[in-house]
Amino acid sequence: MNQKLLNLRDIEFLLYEFLDTEGLLHRPRYQEHSREIFDATLATACTIAERYFANHNSMGDANEPSFDGQNLTMLPETKEAWDAFAEAGFLAAHYDFEQGGMQLPEVILRACMAYFSAANIATTGYPFLSIGAANLINAFGSEQQKSLFLPPMQAGIYAGTMALTEPGQGSALADIKTTAKLAEDGSYRLFGQKMFISGGDQNITENIVHLVLAKIEGAPAGTKGISLFICPKYLVNDDRTLGQRNDVSLAGLLHKMGYRNTTSTVLNFGEKQGAVAYLIGEPHHGLFYMFQMMNEARIGVGLGAAALGYQGFNCSLNFARERPQGRLPSNKNPQSRQVNIIQHADVRRMLLAQKAYSEGALAMCLYASSLFEDIHTADNQQQRQRAGLILDLITPIVKSWTAKYCLKANELAIQVLGGSGYIREYPVEQYYRDNRLNPIHEGTEAIHGLDLLGRKVIVNNGQGLTLLSNEILTTINKANNLDQTAPLAFALSKALNALNDVTSILSAELAESPDLTLANATVYLDVFGCVVASWIWLRQALKATEALTTKTLHENDHRFYRGKLQAARYYMQWELPKIYHQVALLKGFNQIPYQMQDEWF
Amino acid sequence: MNQKLLNLRDIEFLLYEFLDTEGLLHRPRYQEHSREIFDATLATACTIAERYFANHNSMGDANEPSFDGQNLTMLPETKEAWDAFAEAGFLAAHYDFEQGGMQLPEVILRACMAYFSAANIATTGYPFLSIGAANLINAFGSEQQKSLFLPPMQAGIYAGTMALTEPGQGSALADIKTTAKLAEDGSYRLFGQKMFISGGDQNITENIVHLVLAKIEGAPAGTKGISLFICPKYLVNDDRTLGQRNDVSLAGLLHKMGYRNTTSTVLNFGEKQGAVAYLIGEPHHGLFYMFQMMNEARIGVGLGAAALGYQGFNCSLNFARERPQGRLPSNKNPQSRQVNIIQHADVRRMLLAQKAYSEGALAMCLYASSLFEDIHTADNQQQRQRAGLILDLITPIVKSWTAKYCLKANELAIQVLGGSGYIREYPVEQYYRDNRLNPIHEGTEAIHGLDLLGRKVIVNNGQGLTLLSNEILTTINKANNLDQTAPLAFALSKALNALNDVTSILSAELAESPDLTLANATVYLDVFGCVVASWIWLRQALKATEALTTKTLHENDHRFYRGKLQAARYYMQWELPKIYHQVALLKGFNQIPYQMQDEWF
Repeated sequence: MNQKLLNLRDIEFLLYEFLDTEGLLHRPRYQEHSREIFDATLATACTIAERYFANHNSMGDANEPSFDGQNLTMLPETKEAWDAFAEAGFLAAHYDFEQGGMQLPEVILRACMAYFSAANIATTGYPFLSIGAANLINAFGSEQQKSLFLPPMQAGIYAGTMALTEPGQGSALADIKTTAKLAEDGSYRLFGQKMFISGGDQNITENIVHLVLAKIEGAPAGTKGISLFICPKYLVNDDRTLGQRNDVSLAGLLHKMGYRNTTSTVLNFGEKQGAVAYLIGEPHHGLFYMFQMMNEARIGVGLGAAALGYQGFNCSLNFARERPQGRLPSNKNPQSRQVNIIQHADVRRMLLAQKAYSEGALAMCLYASSLFEDIHTADNQQQRQRAGLILDLITPIVKSWTAKYCLKANELAIQVLGGSGYIREYPVEQYYRDNRLNPIHEGTEAIHGLDLLGRKVIVNNGQGLTLLSNEILTTINKANNLDQTAPLAFALSKALNALNDVTSILSAELAESPDLTLANATVYLDVFGCVVASWIWLRQALKATEALTTKTLHENDHRFYRGKLQAARYYMQWELPKIYHQVALLKGFNQIPYQMQDEWF
Repeated sequence: MNQKLLNLRDIEFLLYEFLDTEGLLHRPRYQEHSREIFDATLATACTIAERYFANHNSMGDANEPSFDGQNLTMLPETKEAWDAFAEAGFLAAHYDFEQGGMQLPEVILRACMAYFSAANIATTGYPFLSIGAANLINAFGSEQQKSLFLPPMQAGIYAGTMALTEPGQGSALADIKTTAKLAEDGSYRLFGQKMFISGGDQNITENIVHLVLAKIEGAPAGTKGISLFICPKYLVNDDRTLGQRNDVSLAGLLHKMGYRNTTSTVLNFGEKQGAVAYLIGEPHHGLFYMFQMMNEARIGVGLGAAALGYQGFNCSLNFARERPQGRLPSNKNPQSRQVNIIQHADVRRMLLAQKAYSEGALAMCLYASSLFEDIHTADNQQQRQRAGLILDLITPIVKSWTAKYCLKANELAIQVLGGSGYIREYPVEQYYRDNRLNPIHEGTEAIHGLDLLGRKVIVNNGQGLTLLSNEILTTINKANNLDQTAPLAFALSKALNALNDVTSILSAELAESPDLTLANATVYLDVFGCVVASWIWLRQALKATEALTTKTLHENDHRFYRGKLQAARYYMQWELPKIYHQVALLKGFNQIPYQMQDEWF
């Protein structure tokens, strides 16, 4: 089934109205850029996404990669997509010109990635991970490591992975068992097994650069003993030719519910003499380095969730507009014409919810990307630091809120299609299956809740939350001045107070009673996420309201802005008030799950 | 993966403590029964479910039925399961002894069906539909129809289906196009196409009896022109031997996301000379008759959802008990032993929610079955009528609340397992895919919301709601007398008032502004469902509290009742309060979705 990717009008709104992406052109790094270049880049991404990614989204789902113990078989379209992506320069697009890149702003690259994810989230997994791995080497690798591995990764000759999880420990990285032994030549030999490694093997690139977390023999226990290694599938000679096969092998593939065209692998390191690996940076600092890739990946997960939510929304909207069924309750004449189902209020509720979730999620992820951009290129140090503090704070939200609610969006897309939504003849069931991964990988909701409440809101004396609250208050003050947005501002203001209030109460108990205080951290994460999402929607509503006062507005634009405003109202009236019950649970330190005993189940 | 089906301790609690199933033994129909017979029947169901249904649950998912245009291929285990089910007498178990049945109470049959659904919801689809179709013929068919079709259906030689939906109209039965032409011999010829017909073709029985909705030529428009027909795959001679193939053929299979081992078919009726069909009852009364099967099926859908929720709960509970990972926040020593994840409060939250949803749903469905029983065998006419009014009212809840929240339970089961939950190596992702159908078939949530608010709460002068409210108040009054349950009773009392309040407000506007009043009917359905679920939990909590005062309680029972009480508290404190925001939307006649325009999307 052919359907459009995202919504160009919305992308333009988000980049150039909601965000001030054109403002980047004043920064030194982007002096040679222009809005035309940004738009042409987006158009290229959309074209490649449609031609090389969307073409096998359903096919890759029905014909997932297989491994017979010797050979890995994959759809050839996967490699074609990879090659098209690489040839268009997207693997290196954000690098400086002198590094062979296009010096593209982060937010434009992310918007491009949204197109690819919308077309085929599973195949997009390969470049997504590879970009992250290359960025990590670029940030923390030695000059030699960079010169050896970066150029072929940027060119798409090598791909990259992140190899963290092990069969025995899942999310608890402190307890990884993979060990690294120092060899005479200064490199290391890895021994251990990694699991759920996406793209851990494939047949689309000559080589695969695994970034592996392991513990050097004798390292301290826990996360403070974790080091980060480069461990290539094939060794690379100094002249960059491929050397012998490294002692890392595919033990097997895992069979996922969705995201099927991304291989999910079990990898054995060091079944023979040990897998040759090169330490990145300092020993025992591996988790710190890896967090760069993980944090990038978390925004990427949010963006992927948003793109899937968006595609489900597009599909169900089209269906609702074309499918006649039933009549309005007021019409009792069975001989009258049936209405298209978009005429049923409950269908519009399901579409509005999807719009609120998926457009809100995309806006949130692009905002996060603009912060990432600001960390590196904002005009002064204060602005950079500010962006860093806010992004650090909201990363759990950008990953978790998007994943949770865009999965819900896909659930609603199926419901709009009814029986048709449940069959593979339509794409929405695949979006739903694909999207179910997003609340799990790169940290489950539980982990992000603990990270947010247990660490992020309190580090740096709570500066992140103070800065974010001020940003939100600025929007509220602006919105208070307009009749259309004042009620929305009032609702958000009340919610922000509730969030700050509950944060104070919980923070005060954290040191004393960490287990009880953090028992409901996932609820706190959801409350926080809804407040941030409300803010994102208020900002959109504000821009829409301002635009609606323009006299010469084109009819299509008028409709677009009315839709934004209505979605903001939906979010504020239907979704945001849910937090008050959650806040009550949190403030009362509700102990029902905390007190529940294993034996009582 | 082998795992237990449901939880026998809970089944016994629900049947013999929560419900008074032993009380049925005083009714004339069950004089020859005993608790031992009930229990032995349940044990037989469990054994057959484990041996013949659970054995191919995953296999049937991975190897769904296929059709090459000529031949339909299905797993042979499906027929073995059907045969075992039939041989054990379950197809006829609820019929009177004189009809060849076991005169089994409805609630025991339903509990048996829960075992089969837990083992393999897709394969259970065949007997589930066949029982419903036979019941319909038994209730409304002529003596000749009954004598011709019932015995082979009861014996499992024929199966039955319900053929309502058509490609052009989905849920809007008023607009079906299939026509019936009267033939000279008094039978009819059907012409049309039906879609999403579960079990519409298969190779497990000699014959298939389709119960088809169609319009006799010249019938009135709308639902008042619908008639119900028996249309067998093979014609049946008067001596019950099979005659020629009828003009009904398999046009194709639909490929579902889950429930895969149930064929979902497109059937062509009358491509040649017309499909021979026999009118059931009076012309144009077909929808009335069909509602018997649909209402039965709706409780069945709820029960299936409950069983899937339950299996996900069982699986994730076992996983959480065995999987070590991480440490409590208060423990900063990385050298200490990891805890099993059930020690994490958020995992217990996810388990408690699953327990509340799935045990609550099973309790609700068995309660509905006890009402169905009372309609037919309660001691006096007043009790029978009372049961009928309450069951009619709550059928949309029994179908929808269960489907919605047990799907959510499966979503949580995946989350407890994390990455493992997302792969097909564990069963929870299949439960989730299977369960996604339940909020769709037998009426979407939207349809049940309209049915509940637009019809069921107002018909018979609202007697159903009055009776239900009185039942709930009786429980509240009892619960008020015990310290443990008084706070729960208070919470439910407040919620019941809110429900009655919002019902009055909406009902008053229904005639005047049906479209606006019904715009948020799905929200009303959810509110109503949460109140009923709270009541179901309060009743369980009451029984648990009473049992906990017993001095000689076995340790395992003690734990079981503590668990029931904690789940009730969870539901009352975490779930029920969500309705107040929804009630506010309803009372304010919130118009955000209602006013949203197609063009604004």
